[in-house]
Amino acid sequence: MHVEGHPYRTVWSDPEQAVVRIIDQRKIPWEFEVEDLSSAQEVATAIRDMHVRGAGCIGATAAYGMWLAARQAEGSPERLAELASALVETRPTARNLGWAVERQLEALRDLPPDKWVEASLAGAEAIADEDASWCKRIGQHGLPLLSAIHEQKPGNEPVQVLTHCNAGWLAFTDWGSATAPIYAAHRAGIPIHVWVDETRPRNQGARLTAWELQNEGVPHTVIVDNAGGHLMQHDQVDIVITGTDRTTCSGDVANKIGTYLKALAAHDNDIPFYVALPSSTFDWECRDGMGDIPIEERNGDEVSIVEGRTNKGGLEEVHLVNPDSPTSNYAFDVTPARLVTGLITERGICDATEQAIATLFPSTGRK
Amino acid sequence: MHVEGHPYRTVWSDPEQAVVRIIDQRKIPWEFEVEDLSSAQEVATAIRDMHVRGAGCIGATAAYGMWLAARQAEGSPERLAELASALVETRPTARNLGWAVERQLEALRDLPPDKWVEASLAGAEAIADEDASWCKRIGQHGLPLLSAIHEQKPGNEPVQVLTHCNAGWLAFTDWGSATAPIYAAHRAGIPIHVWVDETRPRNQGARLTAWELQNEGVPHTVIVDNAGGHLMQHDQVDIVITGTDRTTCSGDVANKIGTYLKALAAHDNDIPFYVALPSSTFDWECRDGMGDIPIEERNGDEVSIVEGRTNKGGLEEVHLVNPDSPTSNYAFDVTPARLVTGLITERGICDATEQAIATLFPSTGRK
Repeated sequence: MHVEGHPYRTVWSDPEQAVVRIIDQRKIPWEFEVEDLSSAQEVATAIRDMHVRGAGCIGATAAYGMWLAARQAEGSPERLAELASALVETRPTARNLGWAVERQLEALRDLPPDKWVEASLAGAEAIADEDASWCKRIGQHGLPLLSAIHEQKPGNEPVQVLTHCNAGWLAFTDWGSATAPIYAAHRAGIPIHVWVDETRPRNQGARLTAWELQNEGVPHTVIVDNAGGHLMQHDQVDIVITGTDRTTCSGDVANKIGTYLKALAAHDNDIPFYVALPSSTFDWECRDGMGDIPIEERNGDEVSIVEGRTNKGGLEEVHLVNPDSPTSNYAFDVTPARLVTGLITERGICDATEQAIATLFPSTGRK
Repeated sequence: MHVEGHPYRTVWSDPEQAVVRIIDQRKIPWEFEVEDLSSAQEVATAIRDMHVRGAGCIGATAAYGMWLAARQAEGSPERLAELASALVETRPTARNLGWAVERQLEALRDLPPDKWVEASLAGAEAIADEDASWCKRIGQHGLPLLSAIHEQKPGNEPVQVLTHCNAGWLAFTDWGSATAPIYAAHRAGIPIHVWVDETRPRNQGARLTAWELQNEGVPHTVIVDNAGGHLMQHDQVDIVITGTDRTTCSGDVANKIGTYLKALAAHDNDIPFYVALPSSTFDWECRDGMGDIPIEERNGDEVSIVEGRTNKGGLEEVHLVNPDSPTSNYAFDVTPARLVTGLITERGICDATEQAIATLFPSTGRK
């Protein structure tokens, strides 16, 4: 995708300089900085301190980190394993992270050490390419949904999409999941306007999704999370598309807190509610989303303190809540499959039912 | 209600000093300041610049403003009318404001000027007392709902209430509407815990409701507006109580943006959703809430800029949204009557249906 007109991925390599380059997402939208990482340890720090975030993006960054680890190991399997562990331990709950590092380790296991650097770079590029390719295919499969809505609208009125949180290209290597159909439609010349939920408490919508859409030239408007129901009641939303952090084999969807409320409003107003995901997001062992998906409870300071830019231009934290009041901060909620119109995957769109999912993914996750 | 242990109303008079005293709500929760207003013009400024806000509170403050106006008019009906107009024009959409000023003018119309000051003070006290008394009765009628829930819970577990925005005593002269049953139950010894929606974009929940509850000693937790659905899915909410800005004769409820989403979640989880209101909130001319209640669209800066306290203790505005992204800011939404379990009024509780409302208020608003 584009940043000020130039195409970027969230992570890439510079073999000549022997560095991994990432977009430092902590400062978006206020500043755009590319950071050079020249060791596996620097990559680990970048993941742990959230210079990068989002499942696909973290996985690809760790895969590139293994390329730097292969350089540093100088043929020592022990040293390689040690650096790999340091990468995996940065964010223990992120599934893509361990998967990407393990895939890299396995590829090197039977190779002579003098092939490690070349093979790990090729492996990292493959993981990053696969992530981008799956997201691009999500876009291609979602595009007909948006073009069909456009054809039914009078004149050349834009298709009105509502999205929650950031399931954009910043969370992957390119294209994003929920945003992929939007970008595909926009490039296909379909007029589109996106309502962007600010997504309290961490404001990923107001900061990241809005920034992405602006840089791609997609018309959009940021709204508070409270506003979506009113817009849906008044025919200002044609379709809702969100991402997901984990999806059960029966189609229940865990996503950023507040997604369930938007699904309820879409259902109440007969508006299609789609969830876009690469199939790596399926948890094939899990059937009952409400009962079995553990919901992370994060630090309440994320609710009571917010970072923003002051009128003078600096970044500052301010406290928003009555000082003596406790806060609570559940990070995700589960939208039951009955509220999900369909799942947009890299293989196509299916109903959010166990049978439809199993038909599209017959080997249930073993790809 | 109490502030640091001392009982307060939001507005009161000091006849000896010839001043009206208000709580300056702009600085809550960071600072508690009582402001002296010594002229009708100062009262007008306090209303216009939102030192006070909330329908009942504005009405009572304007009524006291008419007492100061009567003092300043020195027997001149023209001067009195002029000061009355200045009060009414501060916030043209607030219904209680015009109603309170008109009621005061009518009371003085046939009196000799030497009785104006005394009569207008008595009139203001009556308006403030009536507001407090209606809210207190809302609390008495709502109390049995909460005690019934408590009796059905095992052990002495607290009744879990969720509320949105500030329909507390700060919005009236005392007790509040949605908070009145909570305060009544708390004083009756029923254990209670309130989930307080922060209520973006103006954060009335995080700032005002949380501050009120803390000062009354009611256990509570501030959450982002996104969280309520998840809590309801997991049996952590027993009842939702909100206020309303306007209620149709058929029971549709216009309230702070986001209320509709909470009503949907309550309905989806079989949780009672009550709306508390003095009957002055009914719009007897309006039947179709979705179609006929105009929804105010406010300045988008309220979405993109937030005020909070810095770590150093000062108040500062920070920008939260990607700088080049537009924002939109609808202030209210309409919850259809089908999602409302009941209306808690000063006359008792009724279903949110035209028939039930008409039975409880047979003269439909002409009191």
